[in-house]
Amino acid sequence: MREIGERLKRLPGPDEGAAAAAAARQARLTEPPGSLGRLETLAAWLAAWQARHPPRLERVRIAVFAGNHGVVARGVSAYPAAVTAQMVANFHAGGAAINQLARAFGAELVVVPLELDRPTADFTVAPAMSEAELTEALAAGAATVETGLDLLCVGEMGIGNTTTAAALAAALFGGSGRDWVGRGTGVDDAGLARKAAAVDAALALHGAALANPVEALRRVGGRELAAIAGAVLRARELRVPVALDGFVATASAAVWAKAQAGALDHCVAGHCSAEAGHARLLQRLDLKPLLDLGMRLGEATGAAVAIGLLRAAVATHTGMATFEEAGVSGKEG
Amino acid sequence: MREIGERLKRLPGPDEGAAAAAAARQARLTEPPGSLGRLETLAAWLAAWQARHPPRLERVRIAVFAGNHGVVARGVSAYPAAVTAQMVANFHAGGAAINQLARAFGAELVVVPLELDRPTADFTVAPAMSEAELTEALAAGAATVETGLDLLCVGEMGIGNTTTAAALAAALFGGSGRDWVGRGTGVDDAGLARKAAAVDAALALHGAALANPVEALRRVGGRELAAIAGAVLRARELRVPVALDGFVATASAAVWAKAQAGALDHCVAGHCSAEAGHARLLQRLDLKPLLDLGMRLGEATGAAVAIGLLRAAVATHTGMATFEEAGVSGKEG
Repeated sequence: MREIGERLKRLPGPDEGAAAAAAARQARLTEPPGSLGRLETLAAWLAAWQARHPPRLERVRIAVFAGNHGVVARGVSAYPAAVTAQMVANFHAGGAAINQLARAFGAELVVVPLELDRPTADFTVAPAMSEAELTEALAAGAATVETGLDLLCVGEMGIGNTTTAAALAAALFGGSGRDWVGRGTGVDDAGLARKAAAVDAALALHGAALANPVEALRRVGGRELAAIAGAVLRARELRVPVALDGFVATASAAVWAKAQAGALDHCVAGHCSAEAGHARLLQRLDLKPLLDLGMRLGEATGAAVAIGLLRAAVATHTGMATFEEAGVSGKEG
Repeated sequence: MREIGERLKRLPGPDEGAAAAAAARQARLTEPPGSLGRLETLAAWLAAWQARHPPRLERVRIAVFAGNHGVVARGVSAYPAAVTAQMVANFHAGGAAINQLARAFGAELVVVPLELDRPTADFTVAPAMSEAELTEALAAGAATVETGLDLLCVGEMGIGNTTTAAALAAALFGGSGRDWVGRGTGVDDAGLARKAAAVDAALALHGAALANPVEALRRVGGRELAAIAGAVLRARELRVPVALDGFVATASAAVWAKAQAGALDHCVAGHCSAEAGHARLLQRLDLKPLLDLGMRLGEATGAAVAIGLLRAAVATHTGMATFEEAGVSGKEG
């Protein structure tokens, strides 16, 4: 844990040279200033966090982490826990939504199942993970990142994990279970009440220990959440920009934002999920989602769809002619 | 004009068989029902309007129409009218934003300049077009559509045409110039006031004649707007779904919605432009934009970026495994 504190203090910032080069080029492209909106800022953001101008999107990796959750015993999911492993098999066979999106957007898909036959402890009665288990999960996430990646999309699969994410969000940002739980894969009103009750029980049990964000991740998080956190932190250190998926992925990354201001500046929110707590969480993190399509599947699908927007940003920024090259007149007066 | 009335009465509807096939497949895919949000409805919409299941996106065409506007004499644009032709040259040379996006999203780009050296009449003092000119522009638009296209994206380039679109929107949906004008390519407050004044002058001059939507298009529209309208109508007849670009493209298509209820059911709004009137116009048309990225360039760029979302919809709908195929358990209870 002390090691993480040291790492957080040494996070690299945006590359000012690449950012300046992006701004200089942007100003000369054949379009009225600002008229490509967020495509312009995305291109500049990629350049700054890749520390490279022009930015590029050749090596895009999607990392999907899977975990199982002791809290499922509290009746918080509409699906049985066995579905986590079944869906991992589906990922390996190429049949899931994220497989299709990875192919459509030219990204490499890495699936990391985390001890699926050994769920975390039910965090309403004990810490979800031991320190060793947390460290292992953080490392499993970090291991999916390497120098030279142009973008990392992070997402997850884990029956029960919207309850875990709600508990973590409440631990980090306050509020009760009711403020952060949603219908996940589709629980009914009774299931929703059970989710809120589980979160409230966790908040009561772990109490003041949750004030430390990393300790909150250990106590009310889960392996796939810790792995996402580990990947996001390593990405920052290796200058790999990150696209976050939905509620679970964002709650995982939020641990660093809470621990160190600016720690998620290398991340974009791929989309705003239909899962109730996500919009609130994005607001707390001051992240403006790229898409809002009512998606709530997880698997990094929302982040993957956003790859298309980032490709559009890179294509326009790098490919457009300048006013001089094209012989187009500038603004009058 | 009478001929158009007949065509509007004979518009084909969605293909119920393809829509039913899409719904049936959707229900069996390995994801909780509804969890891919608009990706699911987009796949079904494409199937219904392509009259084909599964839907596909192999032949995607982007049609960009360019025109010049007499109303530019009223000082309504920040750029000189010569920029329209200069940008068409830029399109042909491959240097504009839309060229990069067409390449990035695997679409064919068709650019149609419409009598650029013969601007429409200044509609504050006369109808913008004669009946013959309107008919010609409608036909030029229709000519860009053919059977077998899987999607048509429509957009435009025309210095001064956000004023034209504001006049057309006001003619179709009421309100004054101030309600519909925006900063376009970047006019200052005085320019904005001149835009509103030009629209108000047009509304006063043409008065009751604007009650007929097609006549409104002739009197306060422009050639590229008419061409977009012609393309959108022809696309409906040939079962080609359409992605609309921003304010100008949407105002052009709105002529048909006003003339015949449901006439734009084969269209999606690619994005919501930062141009002030677009959000209001989309609301009037009950069109929910796919993207909201602060873009306001035109050239069909907003529609083009939305191709990525449609590809994601087709990829997931057609490529995902069903619960049975993947051996994944369904919802409990």
